[in-house]
Amino acid sequence: MNELRSSRTSVLNAVRDLRWETREVPAPGPFEVRVRVGRIGVCGSDVHYYTHGRIGNFIVEAPLVLGHEVSGTVEALGEGVTRLKVGDRVALEPGVPCRKCEYCKTGHYNLCPHMRFMATPPVDGALSEWVVWPEDFAFPIPDSMSLDAAALLEPLAVGVWSARRGGVKMGDSVAVIGAGPIGCTTLQAARAAGATTLIAVDLEDFRLDLARQLGATHTINARSEDPVARIREITAAISGLPLSHGGVDVAFETAGSVPTCRMSLEAPRPGGVTVLVGLPPAAEVSLDIVSAASRETDIRGIFRYANCYPAAIGLVASGAVNLDVLVTQRFDFAATPEAFAFADAERARSMKVMIDVSP
Amino acid sequence: MNELRSSRTSVLNAVRDLRWETREVPAPGPFEVRVRVGRIGVCGSDVHYYTHGRIGNFIVEAPLVLGHEVSGTVEALGEGVTRLKVGDRVALEPGVPCRKCEYCKTGHYNLCPHMRFMATPPVDGALSEWVVWPEDFAFPIPDSMSLDAAALLEPLAVGVWSARRGGVKMGDSVAVIGAGPIGCTTLQAARAAGATTLIAVDLEDFRLDLARQLGATHTINARSEDPVARIREITAAISGLPLSHGGVDVAFETAGSVPTCRMSLEAPRPGGVTVLVGLPPAAEVSLDIVSAASRETDIRGIFRYANCYPAAIGLVASGAVNLDVLVTQRFDFAATPEAFAFADAERARSMKVMIDVSP
Amino acid sequence: MNELRSSRTSVLNAVRDLRWETREVPAPGPFEVRVRVGRIGVCGSDVHYYTHGRIGNFIVEAPLVLGHEVSGTVEALGEGVTRLKVGDRVALEPGVPCRKCEYCKTGHYNLCPHMRFMATPPVDGALSEWVVWPEDFAFPIPDSMSLDAAALLEPLAVGVWSARRGGVKMGDSVAVIGAGPIGCTTLQAARAAGATTLIAVDLEDFRLDLARQLGATHTINARSEDPVARIREITAAISGLPLSHGGVDVAFETAGSVPTCRMSLEAPRPGGVTVLVGLPPAAEVSLDIVSAASRETDIRGIFRYANCYPAAIGLVASGAVNLDVLVTQRFDFAATPEAFAFADAERARSMKVMIDVSP
Amino acid sequence: MNELRSSRTSVLNAVRDLRWETREVPAPGPFEVRVRVGRIGVCGSDVHYYTHGRIGNFIVEAPLVLGHEVSGTVEALGEGVTRLKVGDRVALEPGVPCRKCEYCKTGHYNLCPHMRFMATPPVDGALSEWVVWPEDFAFPIPDSMSLDAAALLEPLAVGVWSARRGGVKMGDSVAVIGAGPIGCTTLQAARAAGATTLIAVDLEDFRLDLARQLGATHTINARSEDPVARIREITAAISGLPLSHGGVDVAFETAGSVPTCRMSLEAPRPGGVTVLVGLPPAAEVSLDIVSAASRETDIRGIFRYANCYPAAIGLVASGAVNLDVLVTQRFDFAATPEAFAFADAERARSMKVMIDVSP
Repeated sequence: MNELRSSRTSVLNAVRDLRWETREVPAPGPFEVRVRVGRIGVCGSDVHYYTHGRIGNFIVEAPLVLGHEVSGTVEALGEGVTRLKVGDRVALEPGVPCRKCEYCKTGHYNLCPHMRFMATPPVDGALSEWVVWPEDFAFPIPDSMSLDAAALLEPLAVGVWSARRGGVKMGDSVAVIGAGPIGCTTLQAARAAGATTLIAVDLEDFRLDLARQLGATHTINARSEDPVARIREITAAISGLPLSHGGVDVAFETAGSVPTCRMSLEAPRPGGVTVLVGLPPAAEVSLDIVSAASRETDIRGIFRYANCYPAAIGLVASGAVNLDVLVTQRFDFAATPEAFAFADAERARSMKVMIDVSP
Repeated sequence: MNELRSSRTSVLNAVRDLRWETREVPAPGPFEVRVRVGRIGVCGSDVHYYTHGRIGNFIVEAPLVLGHEVSGTVEALGEGVTRLKVGDRVALEPGVPCRKCEYCKTGHYNLCPHMRFMATPPVDGALSEWVVWPEDFAFPIPDSMSLDAAALLEPLAVGVWSARRGGVKMGDSVAVIGAGPIGCTTLQAARAAGATTLIAVDLEDFRLDLARQLGATHTINARSEDPVARIREITAAISGLPLSHGGVDVAFETAGSVPTCRMSLEAPRPGGVTVLVGLPPAAEVSLDIVSAASRETDIRGIFRYANCYPAAIGLVASGAVNLDVLVTQRFDFAATPEAFAFADAERARSMKVMIDVSP
Repeated sequence: MNELRSSRTSVLNAVRDLRWETREVPAPGPFEVRVRVGRIGVCGSDVHYYTHGRIGNFIVEAPLVLGHEVSGTVEALGEGVTRLKVGDRVALEPGVPCRKCEYCKTGHYNLCPHMRFMATPPVDGALSEWVVWPEDFAFPIPDSMSLDAAALLEPLAVGVWSARRGGVKMGDSVAVIGAGPIGCTTLQAARAAGATTLIAVDLEDFRLDLARQLGATHTINARSEDPVARIREITAAISGLPLSHGGVDVAFETAGSVPTCRMSLEAPRPGGVTVLVGLPPAAEVSLDIVSAASRETDIRGIFRYANCYPAAIGLVASGAVNLDVLVTQRFDFAATPEAFAFADAERARSMKVMIDVSP
Repeated sequence: MNELRSSRTSVLNAVRDLRWETREVPAPGPFEVRVRVGRIGVCGSDVHYYTHGRIGNFIVEAPLVLGHEVSGTVEALGEGVTRLKVGDRVALEPGVPCRKCEYCKTGHYNLCPHMRFMATPPVDGALSEWVVWPEDFAFPIPDSMSLDAAALLEPLAVGVWSARRGGVKMGDSVAVIGAGPIGCTTLQAARAAGATTLIAVDLEDFRLDLARQLGATHTINARSEDPVARIREITAAISGLPLSHGGVDVAFETAGSVPTCRMSLEAPRPGGVTVLVGLPPAAEVSLDIVSAASRETDIRGIFRYANCYPAAIGLVASGAVNLDVLVTQRFDFAATPEAFAFADAERARSMKVMIDVSP
């Protein structure tokens, strides 16, 4: 194992400044594995660090390796590893919690105060040839699953968590506001959880077309229609309730803007749920909280996810969710800077940019 | 409306003795509709009353009309009806609760002590040309849904309730023990709720073939394999846990025998759930309750269902569940006695017998 | 029964204009009872209609009888009444839903679009000698319970519903922001549900003193301390988590102001819950929704309550909740106008004004 | 730290054969503390190993140290310990899971296949002067709590878990069948969770008297009354439902016999819950599963507990639960063999035997 000394790595040194470095890769410690990275998906948060150097209170103060949507192949096992073997293809869940605090012990490890999450300062991500990772956050994938799909289990985990947080059940109606990568994984997760009326809202028809292909039963282009009015019409027609009690069981805000945030509070029926998946750029948002509260519309945010990879793998393996179709552009590892420049510039016509790190 | 005076009706007078009667159909009262019956599915409980004259403490002491899987067309509206109009095709939910007791008010109306349920002594079922029924238990169906499927929303409601009671979630593994009509609707409901590993167990290959067609990922013929051992192998391979912790998240017993009841307690993983959908013929069953309890396997029975028709309609309308494929034999209304004789005699090679009551 | 012809009734004709009328009381219909009113508690919403003539979209456009916190004695039974008998002392749950819509059938009847709720335009309240009410919304109370307490089961029902909506569990920490009548019933309900750290926040020491008497373990006068900072200190000391993860499991906003609404979003720990019981006067409130969402603080409003009277009766009967202590002023029925004038003018030094309507 | 070399320890060598040994106590490793043991409660399972050498499949094949109800004082800190300091009085949660498997990650660590639980072969318990234990399973207790109570947080954790598993809510009725130590902690936990009708069932009046003192509202001596009939009467009188729908919301079986196990299935109302806390000595029990299932009585076992110590500490600290009153006999550490002999012989007149290990 000691012949491995260096791993070519893409490092963010400053805004829009990605440089190549050669970094040492440690031998896997107890219960860890070393993984030869295969694919890295470029996430909106990666692009945001690349263009702004920060997300909220997380500030890039030292060179940072980006990339947290990761798949690859197990190459070496640390002491005590039992569940994986060399050659296993795996998806890496990018956050590792402390395992000891109240949040970890109760199953809510996404809220662990000591979480180390890839590509979140000061923790490095995986845009490198090799990474070492704890065995229990490296999930073996079936032969039928592509490495692309395995990398995209990460945004699917967000969708699964969102659907869980929303409490989506058989026969539910849902609205997904924003049909980008997270909107599309959330839509598919909601469908997999039993939603039968699925309304996608976006400003771009190409995204709505994809949403329809992935299971949306209705699409609304917010440039030409009032989403809330349409949502209430569609759902009241199904429930037979008065329009005042129209609205979806669960609305997901994934676009991260103030208008969609406000819209997401009006979209549910009384007793329904709003899940805030995206976050508006301004901390303070003026909201009609009185109306939401007196309709008993629950408002629930999400912060990453916990315990979603096994379900996500099952959904992709069973065919209930299609991740490969989300990849719209592909770059070699050597073209990583171009990949980021593209993802930044062409956001409006891109769904998911994938970097192929495989040898 | 007053020209309607009589409705040809099939009445169970004694064991295996179905006679034709002409019965008066009342005008629909406030908030009621009169429905021209279209299809009646023959349920195992109908056949049991036909062959035994009783089910447990429910005893046929006076002539009884069978049939509680019912679809048809609205023909007349009582005062105050607003949600339905003449000509609507509807599925009838066959039980109407008191609406006033604690069970009704808390949403558990299936346990209402004053429930009136079709074809359960002394309440008549729907094997008749016309029935009058409360508006809010007559559900309009979309044009795309057949009257056959609408009648079979009733056994699907059982499946939906079973999946809900089992708490099936995205990515779950389930075992459905018994692949008859209820097993097949339960399997489909579990899949619609997100289960990705679906194991069907039966003694008949033709049922297992249908189960596979409806989404089973694994089938076990209990004549040739040990179901519990296989279930633990399949699931431990997926979870990566030791065999001692193999087992499904939720096991459904739908066969109603003592051996399958015992099997259903051993099939779940620690912390899993057994749902008793079928019921063994003997009241007392010797069970390894100690093992189930100390593995924290929850045991949950079901009694009919509550609030399942809307979800069931959504699942069929969206294509998530296929009910038409369950109909294996079809009889005209005039051949109702033959339909019952067939359902009794040929249970092993029949899935669902449907009676066509339409004009 | 036909000798009863008239019932002396207090009617709101215009803002601050209560007049006496003599109204006919109908004979109880099927499943209804006639109740001789005993006590009416004056609620903040009654006072608001009295002083403003409206609450949000509910506008007093015709003379309106106020009063919805009601206890009394059964005097006559309609046809079919089985659960009550003449002479029973009862508390009236003031809202009667349609019993037929999806909300009613699923146990969420507080959201029924056809709800008729006392003292909410255009439905009259109970400030009268007699009222007729459905049997199943008239709850018999034990001998040990006073008529005062029985009337105050209504605000306790709000507290019980708030605690349920908040999901309060054994060992939880809660903050109740605003220690008025609803704050005090919510505090007691939270304690009854198992909360062991109970922090009351108010501007008035006399309210905080009462809160402490009713089970608050900590009190914060927001004039002299920063409530959020104190709440985080208190709770982090108990949980052993870093201050960033301090905060209560559940925060209840019962004061209905913008600053307390904002405070209530900052008071929970990550993964905690905010329950909006009071509502700020402005519809739109500027909130740090990003922080709440990314801490996974759920925001839940309440609209009245459902299925809370039985639990509320049990809590008072068992001594877990004390309602009598909330009554700070008492007026005879003939002094109803004075009671309202007092409740309006002396809100800062009054907890609950009770009107004695008994003969 | 290296002066510590030996710890006087009571070791079970064979059935009824406790011997003294001097054992080495390791220095605390990273994130561990060394605790000077203060009190050890004698549990029924300890006595069962003492008298039978086994419990089910757990067999004493090598000398075993008993004792898993443990409190004491922190004496030394391992590397990285931040939450505790020397001198802290602590209660030890006796089971430490693997922290890495699916059960641990989802908050159900009590079902971890790699759990190491004190005094369960082959893992030693704490009947010794010193033990080393992970920091996060050593809970600091407030000054107001006795070391006796701190040791008894362990059986209270069982009660808290039982009440959680039963889903006890405000206003619920519960029956606790068996009023021994576990029955008494379960009763108190159910009361703390909001139960207002609490029915204790036992064969011994002295236990029922204690149950009443701890909050039981009704007691039934099964020698003189039929518990199920009485339970149905009491509860139907409160709910106003017919006797067929009488029964408690939650029944807890804590006596571990076949007749009480059967009783516990009949005690709940339709839709209620049976929690099997005790376990009958025979694996197979003949049960009327048909009746339970068709009443939708859920049957839930428990296996130890997860995440209950913080709530248990809060309940004792707040005065909601009284543990000190459970201690009926007390022995010095040197009299450990006598303590076990007493606990075995005098079970019928003893509640909890406590061993004082303090210096």
